[in-house]
Amino acid sequence: MQRAVKKITVSSKSRSLKLAVVVADFNEEITKGLLKGALKAIHDSGLERKQVRVYHVAGSFEVAELAMRLAKTKRLEAIVCLGAIIKGETTHDQHLASAVTHGLMQIGLDTGVAIGLGVITANNMVQARARCGADKYNRGYAAVVAAILLATQKI
Amino acid sequence: MQRAVKKITVSSKSRSLKLAVVVADFNEEITKGLLKGALKAIHDSGLERKQVRVYHVAGSFEVAELAMRLAKTKRLEAIVCLGAIIKGETTHDQHLASAVTHGLMQIGLDTGVAIGLGVITANNMVQARARCGADKYNRGYAAVVAAILLATQKI
Amino acid sequence: MQRAVKKITVSSKSRSLKLAVVVADFNEEITKGLLKGALKAIHDSGLERKQVRVYHVAGSFEVAELAMRLAKTKRLEAIVCLGAIIKGETTHDQHLASAVTHGLMQIGLDTGVAIGLGVITANNMVQARARCGADKYNRGYAAVVAAILLATQKI
Amino acid sequence: MQRAVKKITVSSKSRSLKLAVVVADFNEEITKGLLKGALKAIHDSGLERKQVRVYHVAGSFEVAELAMRLAKTKRLEAIVCLGAIIKGETTHDQHLASAVTHGLMQIGLDTGVAIGLGVITANNMVQARARCGADKYNRGYAAVVAAILLATQKI
Amino acid sequence: MQRAVKKITVSSKSRSLKLAVVVADFNEEITKGLLKGALKAIHDSGLERKQVRVYHVAGSFEVAELAMRLAKTKRLEAIVCLGAIIKGETTHDQHLASAVTHGLMQIGLDTGVAIGLGVITANNMVQARARCGADKYNRGYAAVVAAILLATQKI
Repeated sequence: MQRAVKKITVSSKSRSLKLAVVVADFNEEITKGLLKGALKAIHDSGLERKQVRVYHVAGSFEVAELAMRLAKTKRLEAIVCLGAIIKGETTHDQHLASAVTHGLMQIGLDTGVAIGLGVITANNMVQARARCGADKYNRGYAAVVAAILLATQKI
Repeated sequence: MQRAVKKITVSSKSRSLKLAVVVADFNEEITKGLLKGALKAIHDSGLERKQVRVYHVAGSFEVAELAMRLAKTKRLEAIVCLGAIIKGETTHDQHLASAVTHGLMQIGLDTGVAIGLGVITANNMVQARARCGADKYNRGYAAVVAAILLATQKI
Repeated sequence: MQRAVKKITVSSKSRSLKLAVVVADFNEEITKGLLKGALKAIHDSGLERKQVRVYHVAGSFEVAELAMRLAKTKRLEAIVCLGAIIKGETTHDQHLASAVTHGLMQIGLDTGVAIGLGVITANNMVQARARCGADKYNRGYAAVVAAILLATQKI
Repeated sequence: MQRAVKKITVSSKSRSLKLAVVVADFNEEITKGLLKGALKAIHDSGLERKQVRVYHVAGSFEVAELAMRLAKTKRLEAIVCLGAIIKGETTHDQHLASAVTHGLMQIGLDTGVAIGLGVITANNMVQARARCGADKYNRGYAAVVAAILLATQKI
Repeated sequence: MQRAVKKITVSSKSRSLKLAVVVADFNEEITKGLLKGALKAIHDSGLERKQVRVYHVAGSFEVAELAMRLAKTKRLEAIVCLGAIIKGETTHDQHLASAVTHGLMQIGLDTGVAIGLGVITANNMVQARARCGADKYNRGYAAVVAAILLATQKI
């Protein structure tokens, strides 16, 4: 991952990049960690804080809804989507995770804005915590790297 | 959740918000509780009753169908969708829950209207009851809060 | 369910309603029962037979295909879709049921025509028979009621 | 099934029908059987060979891709899709089967061309062989019958 | 497979074919093997290296996103998509694989560009390695063959 970030840092294209982060407050313990990781990746990539706006929504379903609204403004090159869907007693989490993942994919395909997939689907809090900590497994960090690489990819 | 509601209450933007609630009558014991929770959240958010219209349909499949029709009128900023899909003997509930969740996502992405996901998918009535009672786990309440926050989010 | 039907009967809006029933002939023992239930619900709702046309197709996949063609004619307010997908040795039934349920949802969302979901997904013939008999559990009956209520819903 | 075919034979509408068959070469032992069944059904339906074109692609994923290209030409009333997805060690087959079934559904809904679903999803070769033999369980045969009935259905 | 490639080699249509390969760097050990297989298939098919461009993205989600952007340029006849989704502790891989497979299907259906499905979904590294080696089971190789055949298919 570090190598990937290095590539981003040297790219002059990322200097003008406009990026949004949409984060769900549900399972806040986890999503705060994802957001921290995302902001660290943004910093490591050499983006300035003013290139970035952070939006808070209630849950992962709303992350996708807001991401689409943001994508349609055509003001952004990348939107990083952060949320935490934890398995509960019912199958709710599976339907939600499916709809959100497919929904985020659709936003990317329909609008061309680079969507960073930082929505965790975990079976329990232990798994979720392992994906939002201060190390290289932070999926918020990875989602930012992926989205910046994609947004700055020349085709 | 209370904090979230507080944020809504102070927002002047929610004063002019037009919101619809679409509720399925199937598994009425559950969906009545969801509706009660939703109306409480609307009240707690400082919305007046005249800003809100409630629509009844047969089941969760029809909730999505009507929500799309309402969303296309462009008269509304938010639509809260309430239903209860309980696991039965067959896989019907899983296909229905998948289609409804993806369908509600599509409405949000296509129209930009804030969709509140208040459709319960539960394995049994005990689980369903635990999600429609007079406490903070009422998913109708949560869906209203999520939808109002999303609808009043400045981007 | 009876209450729901009563509401339909008194509605003057349903008097001019144009409704189609699309029924799959595959698993004919079951779908004949569904059709019977659907026609009974149509009768109970006070619709006249001339307001209704019945179409036969081979299987549930084709039900969705024809329903979309019918919906696009804009001559109809409601289309009731009847079929029976029974679990076999393979996973064919699950993929089919998923595609059909999502497909019918898409028709409703895209066209605004009220779609009645009367496609059974059952693990065996016993379960299927229990959903197409001459009682209140007939899903063809329920699908008609749901579709008429939806189609006559003022928004 | 025989009755259904008889109905097709007498229909004068099928005389001018243009139909394509798209067949995957992957798991050729199975798909050759499906194609044989499909061609028999075409013959039994009274269609002449010149009304039909057969296209070969690599696998079931490509069947859907080519079927959409063909459907968009607007030269065809029906496209019969033949493939064999057999369960392997991984979940690849499930994701593929899901995407192909939903994809074929989408083609039918978007274009109005009658799509015959002749893609087998089987857990093993025994199950696959049982669905492509010289008997009434040949799914290629059934897919042709279903597609012709649908394409010639007056609405 | 060899036979299929032979057919491609003789086709004069593939001489002017423009093809892109999009490869995910995540699980690089596997995707490097897929890329090697893909480039070998391109060579075996008689395409010259200048007819082909290779793009690197972070993961399989981004493969689909970039493939859509490339497809919309209308400069390409085929896009081969390479990635490796390996089962982890959570259900993340299943949702990702579902969204990616459906997403790649949608690109093919929407744009008409031939999409080669070379995204592996494996339960473990052993299964993944078995699908990216220097033999006929390399899915990168197979995806190129499938895509070229499809792109050069006259309809």
